[in-house]
Amino acid sequence: MVNETQHTCSASSSSKSDGGSSSGSESSKDSSRCSTPVLDADRHERLREKMRRRQDSGDKWFSLEFFPPRTANAAVNLISRFDRMGAGGPLFIDVTWHPAGDPGSDKETSSMIIANTAVNYCGLETILHMTCCNQTKDDITGHLQKAKRLGLKNIMALRGDPAGEEWEEEVHGFNYAVDLVKHIRNEFDDYFDICVAGYPKGHPEAESYEADLRHLKEKVFAGADFIITQLFFRSETFLKFMKDCQAIGITCPIIPGIFPIQGYHSLRQLVKLSKLEVPQEIKDVIEPIKDNDAAIRNYGVELAVSMCRELLDSGMVHGLHFYTLNREVATTEVLKRLGIWKEDPRRPLPWAVSAHPKRRVEDVRPIFWASRPKSYIYRTQEWDDFPNGRWGNSSSPAFGELKDYYLFYLKSKSPREELLKMWGEELTGEESVFEVFTCYITGEPNKNGHKVTCMPWNDDPLATETNLLKEQLEKVNRRGILTINSQPNINGKPSTDPIVGWGPSGGYVFQKAYLEFFTSSEIVTALLKVLKKYELRVNYHIVNVKGQNITNAPDLQPNAVTWGIFPGREIIQPTVVDPVSFLSWKDEAFALWIEQWAKLYEEESPSRMIIQYIHDNYYLVNLVDNDFPLENCLWQVVDDTFELLN
Amino acid sequence: MVNETQHTCSASSSSKSDGGSSSGSESSKDSSRCSTPVLDADRHERLREKMRRRQDSGDKWFSLEFFPPRTANAAVNLISRFDRMGAGGPLFIDVTWHPAGDPGSDKETSSMIIANTAVNYCGLETILHMTCCNQTKDDITGHLQKAKRLGLKNIMALRGDPAGEEWEEEVHGFNYAVDLVKHIRNEFDDYFDICVAGYPKGHPEAESYEADLRHLKEKVFAGADFIITQLFFRSETFLKFMKDCQAIGITCPIIPGIFPIQGYHSLRQLVKLSKLEVPQEIKDVIEPIKDNDAAIRNYGVELAVSMCRELLDSGMVHGLHFYTLNREVATTEVLKRLGIWKEDPRRPLPWAVSAHPKRRVEDVRPIFWASRPKSYIYRTQEWDDFPNGRWGNSSSPAFGELKDYYLFYLKSKSPREELLKMWGEELTGEESVFEVFTCYITGEPNKNGHKVTCMPWNDDPLATETNLLKEQLEKVNRRGILTINSQPNINGKPSTDPIVGWGPSGGYVFQKAYLEFFTSSEIVTALLKVLKKYELRVNYHIVNVKGQNITNAPDLQPNAVTWGIFPGREIIQPTVVDPVSFLSWKDEAFALWIEQWAKLYEEESPSRMIIQYIHDNYYLVNLVDNDFPLENCLWQVVDDTFELLN
Repeated sequence: MVNETQHTCSASSSSKSDGGSSSGSESSKDSSRCSTPVLDADRHERLREKMRRRQDSGDKWFSLEFFPPRTANAAVNLISRFDRMGAGGPLFIDVTWHPAGDPGSDKETSSMIIANTAVNYCGLETILHMTCCNQTKDDITGHLQKAKRLGLKNIMALRGDPAGEEWEEEVHGFNYAVDLVKHIRNEFDDYFDICVAGYPKGHPEAESYEADLRHLKEKVFAGADFIITQLFFRSETFLKFMKDCQAIGITCPIIPGIFPIQGYHSLRQLVKLSKLEVPQEIKDVIEPIKDNDAAIRNYGVELAVSMCRELLDSGMVHGLHFYTLNREVATTEVLKRLGIWKEDPRRPLPWAVSAHPKRRVEDVRPIFWASRPKSYIYRTQEWDDFPNGRWGNSSSPAFGELKDYYLFYLKSKSPREELLKMWGEELTGEESVFEVFTCYITGEPNKNGHKVTCMPWNDDPLATETNLLKEQLEKVNRRGILTINSQPNINGKPSTDPIVGWGPSGGYVFQKAYLEFFTSSEIVTALLKVLKKYELRVNYHIVNVKGQNITNAPDLQPNAVTWGIFPGREIIQPTVVDPVSFLSWKDEAFALWIEQWAKLYEEESPSRMIIQYIHDNYYLVNLVDNDFPLENCLWQVVDDTFELLN
Repeated sequence: MVNETQHTCSASSSSKSDGGSSSGSESSKDSSRCSTPVLDADRHERLREKMRRRQDSGDKWFSLEFFPPRTANAAVNLISRFDRMGAGGPLFIDVTWHPAGDPGSDKETSSMIIANTAVNYCGLETILHMTCCNQTKDDITGHLQKAKRLGLKNIMALRGDPAGEEWEEEVHGFNYAVDLVKHIRNEFDDYFDICVAGYPKGHPEAESYEADLRHLKEKVFAGADFIITQLFFRSETFLKFMKDCQAIGITCPIIPGIFPIQGYHSLRQLVKLSKLEVPQEIKDVIEPIKDNDAAIRNYGVELAVSMCRELLDSGMVHGLHFYTLNREVATTEVLKRLGIWKEDPRRPLPWAVSAHPKRRVEDVRPIFWASRPKSYIYRTQEWDDFPNGRWGNSSSPAFGELKDYYLFYLKSKSPREELLKMWGEELTGEESVFEVFTCYITGEPNKNGHKVTCMPWNDDPLATETNLLKEQLEKVNRRGILTINSQPNINGKPSTDPIVGWGPSGGYVFQKAYLEFFTSSEIVTALLKVLKKYELRVNYHIVNVKGQNITNAPDLQPNAVTWGIFPGREIIQPTVVDPVSFLSWKDEAFALWIEQWAKLYEEESPSRMIIQYIHDNYYLVNLVDNDFPLENCLWQVVDDTFELLN
């Protein structure tokens, strides 16, 4: 990922940097200290530029199409799917537009909000579909403005299906996709990258294949940046279409739409909608096995792999677009067999980067939200700078409020019954809470035989990195040090390390040991005595729900706990323990006891009162061992504390 | 130096950080990332606050008085003395005001410019004296405005001696120091810290001791922040004076003025000027040894040490002010024997910090000026930010011009004859230049028996740190790799390391190996071939005087080559290799060949033509080995280059 280029500048270009205004100076201004180092060129590029760069480098790519879900639960599942399929490295995903489903609304299932989540929370380059048929200009402009406001940068401009049977052209309305393309370019200039649809067999309603090609050319000349095609069943179909496009002067990228057959019924439905005909040789194979889903899927994968190979081998195809039908297995299998599913263990930064254009300069976050990145993104969505004093600048927008539909939307994926099984149908005391934390750490089932796979502060099972600390974490959780976040110290591991590495290769990453937990005031009293011995080595913040705050942080400065040193770059310190944002996190961390755990139980029930008691009386503690080259002393601090208590 | 304080904040103060405007939030805004970490509280404090803090902590201190020199050469020497005596840790120095010597002018010997140099180039907290007698209000305001503009923050307000014998009060003029104090407070509000003079025996012209105390009280109540006394010979004199001051309500700090007797004649002259009487017991000792300077000085040191001990032991005295008479030995000796000369090997940053208030946020510099810090400060004096994009921002003031009286003023301390002895009366070829570089590195005399103690790019002998590389440097200079700057790689040494340490204790410092040199185009051609092998490991910039520039720096980003990790703080990266500023440094580095070396020789002389040839044809090269945990590979790069040439 190191972008090493050899510049040979003439005398005149060198003099520019003294006084002139060259683009070189501009970029160097951008990349001067205190601004984001160019870790990942992708973050700064438009989709069409990314495509071009991949084409130039010969690096094949893929993209994935999804449709918006019907229910809130399905939305939560789809977002997890985005995270998992995003790991394979799609160049982009796209979200279809369902006119019947209130696609531009704020509902958590709308096309707009699903695309928003993909961009901002999952960090995926995303295309939002939009249809124009039967809509007013104002409606469409409103949707586009909203999309822009949310950080969406790409639109797939479609006509959509007419609502009634007898569709008539409106004189000043949007009758064709080309009208929408023109409208976007008129109203939003070059802001959006625009994609349009191509039909390898011609649009079913077009007068002829040739007429349809001319319509496509019109769309491109009106301002579309690239084309994605309707599905097709033979590679020759696409390759002929592509040559025909080129022959009439269409030069933009044309991306084949791939549909891995995943079942008999979905195939039939799609064929009906798209008015395509399934070739006889496919029908011949499928009909005999139409009730055997696995067999059909295997065949679909085989078929897709061989068609994709033909396309890629033709030398004319650089990227493949997959109609996933919101399913994972078949598409992932095809991609893996083609060798273009690239689970890159290297991360540009140690946390998942958001794809919102405003956030492309974000290069530091407080450690506290490490297990709740979506909440951090949501609560800082109004920020213009990341963070440039924002954590501490009281005159600027601070962290967003906690109470919001988003918190509901981002709530645990597991339903109430599941959570009760994991966290206890009935709590008998603080110890039963300790037990839940311990089971989460060990991965062992609780006494009712259920594994604890998430906690209010951690939506997912333990991170690989935290696994390094498992044994010690188990020990302390059993005794009431209820850990919710931790990292080991790292003294210069290669940036390519599969577990703790991040950033460009050739660098070194470092960490200070960190431990964050809830614990009783009795333990805090002993801990504070012990911490005196570690005064110069360990920084701490200890706070309760009322905001009583004990710290030895010098001058409320942030403490960098993760940093990296890379060839030819400034130091990057993406994670800090920041005293000011800790107080915002404290509110959220304490609220999660009540909102996610206590409220599982009846009011006035003993279980609820136990959680309420912890919420009211426990402290939230974080500890940093500054001596990163030595053995982590935080376990010793905790041991000393228990010893003092005995 | 770690300022660890335990804050216990109430709920209300914690809520401030969410929305209110508390000073805590302010300071945290200041200290948020990308701004200067509070490495050294001193840099942010006013002199009166520093005094108060030292008084509270019981940490005894001293200050040093100097007068402006008569000649430019003496000015250069005085500035070196500032650097040497500044190493002992004075709380401040002060520069007297010589009305006869055009004290407010831009001459390099004026009080104003000497004080300016002390603050900005030597990084010393400085008080500028100013007298008001026989001057107009406008003159004085002009001087004060200029002082403020130059970054001076402290004024010693004095009456001064009347010009004629028959002095009459001017009705609306400045007749007494108190008028000047009032004027400063009226015109400049609280900007300046103001010091006034106290007379332990009463001012010679005062009606009485008591009347003089009342005048002193007036000066303090008019706005003076502290008092420095005239010299005295017995500690009782000062202690009685101090009690008398306190008795009439003077509560500000009163600093005793100490005059270590350094010679018979200087004592007589001072006594005559100050109208003080030397006690008989001192006269009795001095008269018999009046022609033995060393004996008098020894006696003076003894006397001063015992008087200072009495003062400090009284518990009433926290700081001592020394009248140095611009001499080093006696005062340094007294301070060392008192144990308050504190040559602190720890530096807040790896380079000497300027005391200009604008520069207190400066926390990063390009490595290139490492041996010419005064030039760097001069050339960036118009900057408002350090550097925040300034290196690369072409619309902002760039580096100051080279041709200026300052370059002359900051020129080599050695006269032309000395330089010729070191650098060669007559050069016979490029090899004789290699020889000069080699002798500078080794410290061995050249073939005419003279040691080379400075070079055009290095005003001082080799830094201790560079000594670590001596053997390798010698080898490569002999062969025409003419090194002017280098640092070894450091992989996490304690911040208290006496050679490479800097910053607060408890931290770790790091460096990437750096090598900068001039060399011929033949060697550059071979070097470039060798560098291909090191493409991912070594960053390079290679430029000639015409600006031909070859580099593999990614996107013209700065490369951090010195950084430190400290308890409870963000990463600090005080030194970078910055591609944009390198082109400004290149101009200066090449100009020094001509201005400081070639011009020692007659025009058209062979020696001059040799230097001119090097200037016109050599390249300036810098190399960074990014792999700081491994053995420095830059020597291997150079070896490989020579091997390729053979």
